[in-house]
Amino acid sequence: MNQLILSKAGSDVQMIPEVANHLISSGGKRLRPMLTLASASLFDYRGENHVKLATSVEFMHTATLLHDDVVDESDLRRGKSTARMIWGNQASVLVGDFLLGQAFRMMVDVGSLDALDVLSSAACVIAEGEVLQLSVAKNMETTEDDYLSVIRAKTAALFAAAAEVGPIVAEAGRSGRNALKSYGMNLGLAFQLVDDALDYGGKAADLGKNVGDDFREGKITLPVILAYRRGTQDERAFWRDAIEAGNSSDANLEKALGLITKYGTLSDTIGRAVHYGTIARDALAPLPDTAWKSALMEVIDFCIERVN
Amino acid sequence: MNQLILSKAGSDVQMIPEVANHLISSGGKRLRPMLTLASASLFDYRGENHVKLATSVEFMHTATLLHDDVVDESDLRRGKSTARMIWGNQASVLVGDFLLGQAFRMMVDVGSLDALDVLSSAACVIAEGEVLQLSVAKNMETTEDDYLSVIRAKTAALFAAAAEVGPIVAEAGRSGRNALKSYGMNLGLAFQLVDDALDYGGKAADLGKNVGDDFREGKITLPVILAYRRGTQDERAFWRDAIEAGNSSDANLEKALGLITKYGTLSDTIGRAVHYGTIARDALAPLPDTAWKSALMEVIDFCIERVN
Repeated sequence: MNQLILSKAGSDVQMIPEVANHLISSGGKRLRPMLTLASASLFDYRGENHVKLATSVEFMHTATLLHDDVVDESDLRRGKSTARMIWGNQASVLVGDFLLGQAFRMMVDVGSLDALDVLSSAACVIAEGEVLQLSVAKNMETTEDDYLSVIRAKTAALFAAAAEVGPIVAEAGRSGRNALKSYGMNLGLAFQLVDDALDYGGKAADLGKNVGDDFREGKITLPVILAYRRGTQDERAFWRDAIEAGNSSDANLEKALGLITKYGTLSDTIGRAVHYGTIARDALAPLPDTAWKSALMEVIDFCIERVN
Repeated sequence: MNQLILSKAGSDVQMIPEVANHLISSGGKRLRPMLTLASASLFDYRGENHVKLATSVEFMHTATLLHDDVVDESDLRRGKSTARMIWGNQASVLVGDFLLGQAFRMMVDVGSLDALDVLSSAACVIAEGEVLQLSVAKNMETTEDDYLSVIRAKTAALFAAAAEVGPIVAEAGRSGRNALKSYGMNLGLAFQLVDDALDYGGKAADLGKNVGDDFREGKITLPVILAYRRGTQDERAFWRDAIEAGNSSDANLEKALGLITKYGTLSDTIGRAVHYGTIARDALAPLPDTAWKSALMEVIDFCIERVN
């Protein structure tokens, strides 16, 4: 798969592999495409098409990251300057479009209309989730349910699709597809919840980005939603000033971290992740006990216990 | 098709139809999707799938426009403020991604792997063309051949794909596909050549954008390439200063227009368009004479004689 990723990021237009490989070789976890490989293998798939679909999934993810960095005006990703800081917003948008195109070409090459249906639907849902996130940004009245709708669409939908195309390519039945889709969806929710906790509770060196990026961008994530809802009237006024009015100074970030600690909202956010992890685990439970199943179970623990 | 365009631009996330309809309802010519409808009808297609593919084509085009306006930092398109000026770069990038996703979903819904192959390949080539355009920007040594590579990829490839999926959905044979693909490719080249001439020779009121936008962006198009190559040493120094160093004041635009007139490069650019228009015409020539064929022939004249 790594070979295919590198070869399909190639182009006669030199800037394309430069920009694409900057991100592709930056030590991403390859978590989503591994879900595709493992979930196909779980159903004894023996061909090569799962590698193409896994590469498609990784390209969809990489395209999203390139576009996200433009949307969020981010400087750092995985401990390196973002592509937009080196080659500009223009190249990031267009190389993202190229990778998305390549992703679809590989899916077409596989020739499964079911896999195409699942992945193209996910592409729409992801974009909807990103737009939804924009429209709830800087709004402290966002509920946990609103937040869940955002992360279900922008993150979990691709995990779900990545896991579901495994049984599809292996020509497993409907119950296998449903099990893996449910596993992926709930794993994705757990993954994003932990991600959002790490943004306030991680170490910059582990994260490859700065602590408090979400705070500075006015992104509403669960640690903040809970601290706001549990806070006093004065504390809620502080959050509105910091997030809605954008007063995200370092001093205010310190104060925010204090309130997050006061109300224990990081551990509660992790608690929510554990909840979804349990659902993911039970989704796989009825399947035969194999090494692949154990691997997929371990991924749940990895996602919840990770530090980056 | 217009109904399907409006319905598929819909989403529960309110900002999506707002942004999408701003551009979709701004009086675009619907030229590319009409090629799909006409080229399917040319082969007596009687179903509904050509409408879905035409809508996919228009969405691919609309997504490109939304991303282009971000890449080019444009203020005006079709006489209205660009989406990015109203809703920001973020929404333009993400709603473009959404429309691209919807385009693929509709293609998948049609279920033709051949049509999916042609259109997903076009999506890659278009992005490559846009990146290529970025990398030759502000480089006065760009040749007419380099320029042709750019417009073939960024514009003509979608015209070719739009025309080719007509015979595909109508299950016409290989020669029909090849004829329509060649027609579309050459029509697209003619279209873009005229577009680039209009940028220097049109009227702002007709264009819906400002005369000289390409000049100010340092875009290298044929009217400039020819004027540079035919110019004196002093005139070539002027072009390098204006385009490469970015001294694109109104006074310099006036001077550039003077040189373009001096060397007759607008009429020569139109001459090239006529050349490709002739190839498009001959590509269709062997097909039976029907009202649809006449309509496709008329499109060639329209593209060459248009004022916007």
